[in-house]
Amino acid sequence: MVWSPNESGESNASRVEVPLGERSYLIEITSGAVDRFGEAIASSLEDMTHAVVIADEAVDADWAEPLVKSLVAVGGENPIRVSKTSVPSGEPSKSIAQFEKLLGWMLDSGGDRRSVVIAVGGGVVGDLAGYVAASFTRGVRFVQVPTTLLAMVDSSVGGKTGINLPAAKNMVGAFWQPSIVLIDTEVLSTLPDRSYRSGLAEVIKYGVIEDAEFFQWLESNARALIDRDDAALRCAIEKSCRCKARVVGEDERETSGRRAILNYGHTFGHAIEATAGYGTLLHGEAVAIGMQMAAHLAIDLKMADRTLLDRQNALIHACGLPTTFENADPDEMLPVMMRDKKVAHGKLRFILPTEIGVVDLVGGIEESAVRRAITSAR
Amino acid sequence: MVWSPNESGESNASRVEVPLGERSYLIEITSGAVDRFGEAIASSLEDMTHAVVIADEAVDADWAEPLVKSLVAVGGENPIRVSKTSVPSGEPSKSIAQFEKLLGWMLDSGGDRRSVVIAVGGGVVGDLAGYVAASFTRGVRFVQVPTTLLAMVDSSVGGKTGINLPAAKNMVGAFWQPSIVLIDTEVLSTLPDRSYRSGLAEVIKYGVIEDAEFFQWLESNARALIDRDDAALRCAIEKSCRCKARVVGEDERETSGRRAILNYGHTFGHAIEATAGYGTLLHGEAVAIGMQMAAHLAIDLKMADRTLLDRQNALIHACGLPTTFENADPDEMLPVMMRDKKVAHGKLRFILPTEIGVVDLVGGIEESAVRRAITSAR
Repeated sequence: MVWSPNESGESNASRVEVPLGERSYLIEITSGAVDRFGEAIASSLEDMTHAVVIADEAVDADWAEPLVKSLVAVGGENPIRVSKTSVPSGEPSKSIAQFEKLLGWMLDSGGDRRSVVIAVGGGVVGDLAGYVAASFTRGVRFVQVPTTLLAMVDSSVGGKTGINLPAAKNMVGAFWQPSIVLIDTEVLSTLPDRSYRSGLAEVIKYGVIEDAEFFQWLESNARALIDRDDAALRCAIEKSCRCKARVVGEDERETSGRRAILNYGHTFGHAIEATAGYGTLLHGEAVAIGMQMAAHLAIDLKMADRTLLDRQNALIHACGLPTTFENADPDEMLPVMMRDKKVAHGKLRFILPTEIGVVDLVGGIEESAVRRAITSAR
Repeated sequence: MVWSPNESGESNASRVEVPLGERSYLIEITSGAVDRFGEAIASSLEDMTHAVVIADEAVDADWAEPLVKSLVAVGGENPIRVSKTSVPSGEPSKSIAQFEKLLGWMLDSGGDRRSVVIAVGGGVVGDLAGYVAASFTRGVRFVQVPTTLLAMVDSSVGGKTGINLPAAKNMVGAFWQPSIVLIDTEVLSTLPDRSYRSGLAEVIKYGVIEDAEFFQWLESNARALIDRDDAALRCAIEKSCRCKARVVGEDERETSGRRAILNYGHTFGHAIEATAGYGTLLHGEAVAIGMQMAAHLAIDLKMADRTLLDRQNALIHACGLPTTFENADPDEMLPVMMRDKKVAHGKLRFILPTEIGVVDLVGGIEESAVRRAITSAR
């Protein structure tokens, strides 16, 4: 790719590769380059003649519009035709109905096998637009432009796309890797505080599961992150993307068990989200509480000592995230956890930490211990 | 796989491999073995504990039921849980609504990542159930048990799955290879004559595009095929599957252009189906007429001589298929052809024969020549 994120050459950008053989791709981490993303996309997808932008309505004017302008401006001998639509913010957009609507719209817009779908938004739009890309004419190319911290460090990388069934989240979808992921920290300037902090939960997760040094760095830099200091932010995003890229590169389709470590805090977290009523807690908030439950469970099973829980608790607090959920109810959460996709034929398994930076996949856990872990976080 | 299609050891069975690296699989061609297919599936998918059978309602009692019984009978220490449902016969079942219904049903039936979807039916059920398998929890394993000749020689092999949008066929789907394809010629005993003959169009296609010797064999054996002679039938199915397996193995996702040769007669054929109103003509009937239009076009372009058209015409007739369509209207068909997935940014391309057994992908054809080809088949 000839595109450089800095016109000046000054280095406030970095690049992470997701190593997946012929499906390998780059994550570009930049600041203030959205109005040149069209160039970046066109230069890495050279025979693109039709761009299909699907934006979250909340970022449509601020970030999708400049991106569209930059795509149109690429022009030259073979101008790129650009179609844009937006979807309502929030989880309900990850529905079969919205999926169907977008597919019909894409066909009406003259979409064909060489169209490129560009998702501009958070995890909801990335998952939804990614599944549209995976499905339209059995698959077209796909670009992720994440606009939330959560999407930047997690959902936009790794190729998981999909929608919800009324009874279960992410139950329908495809593994469909993007061709490129374009991250711009400036985009976070329009992100509400609560949503921003929610993204920090996944950042903390990478420290706990894989990188004790990064965890320590986070302990020292929590204040800078809360203040959205650009250098700290870019460092945290890059570290997180590197961790995710490495894990995904080793287990693209979640078959070896390796990728399962990314679900640390998530089996509890999903059940918290579902029983609280989707929307009551943000995903990252539920994951933060879920990580605390998982740490409690590890201590209960004598796999980890109390220091781990205390340090994790302090860091989550320092990032402005909750560590407790007063309505946590084992009777409600357990049935939801049993329906989790990761459940293998009725047996609950958890990713549990043994120390900061090291986790294990643990099965065969007594239901009573799981119940204690849930109530510990009330 | 330890399963043998013949208890006696007598050889009325054959096996074709689809060579796709780690996604390679076998096509088993048998006679009178459906009541042992459960065994075949269990022995090739060893850790299957939940089978999800999706059947065309027209073959549910005759063929899906014995298959379900044989799955239940496999039993042993780890009995297989079996869920079965059926869908209405015909193209309208390839809808988003039916897709959604099946996904919800599969979840309610306790489906998880290790469930195996088994399609029992023709192309409609294979495409629909295959897309359900590709999508449920981002993909579960999939078995094809084709019950029409068309599905046996074409749609059950090669991994194309999908559903229709109201405005365009097969516009949404996935490439999702089956784990095994189980063909039993006895199943064809309950297939109506018109549907059976429709399948012969695809058989003829393989002769024209790849195998002059096979074409000649078909000329000699058309009568035996029409009479559903079992030996002739198995030979025709095996030859067809071998041809399809070879082409698919060389171009799994239709990216190199190689796989496009399988679309001989289909660009015209799809437009005939669409303008006649889906259901007026069977797919194979439309393909038969489409092959005649393509041969006309080849002659018009001086790529082939008249003998080719005459031999193809005679063989199609001998197989009880139509070669003309009196309502063929270029004004109606051309817009449909322009919406075909294979159209590359507004340019029509056709697979055209130069002699029996040899075809070329030809672009840049004058619209007037396409119009003449269409009206030639009135």
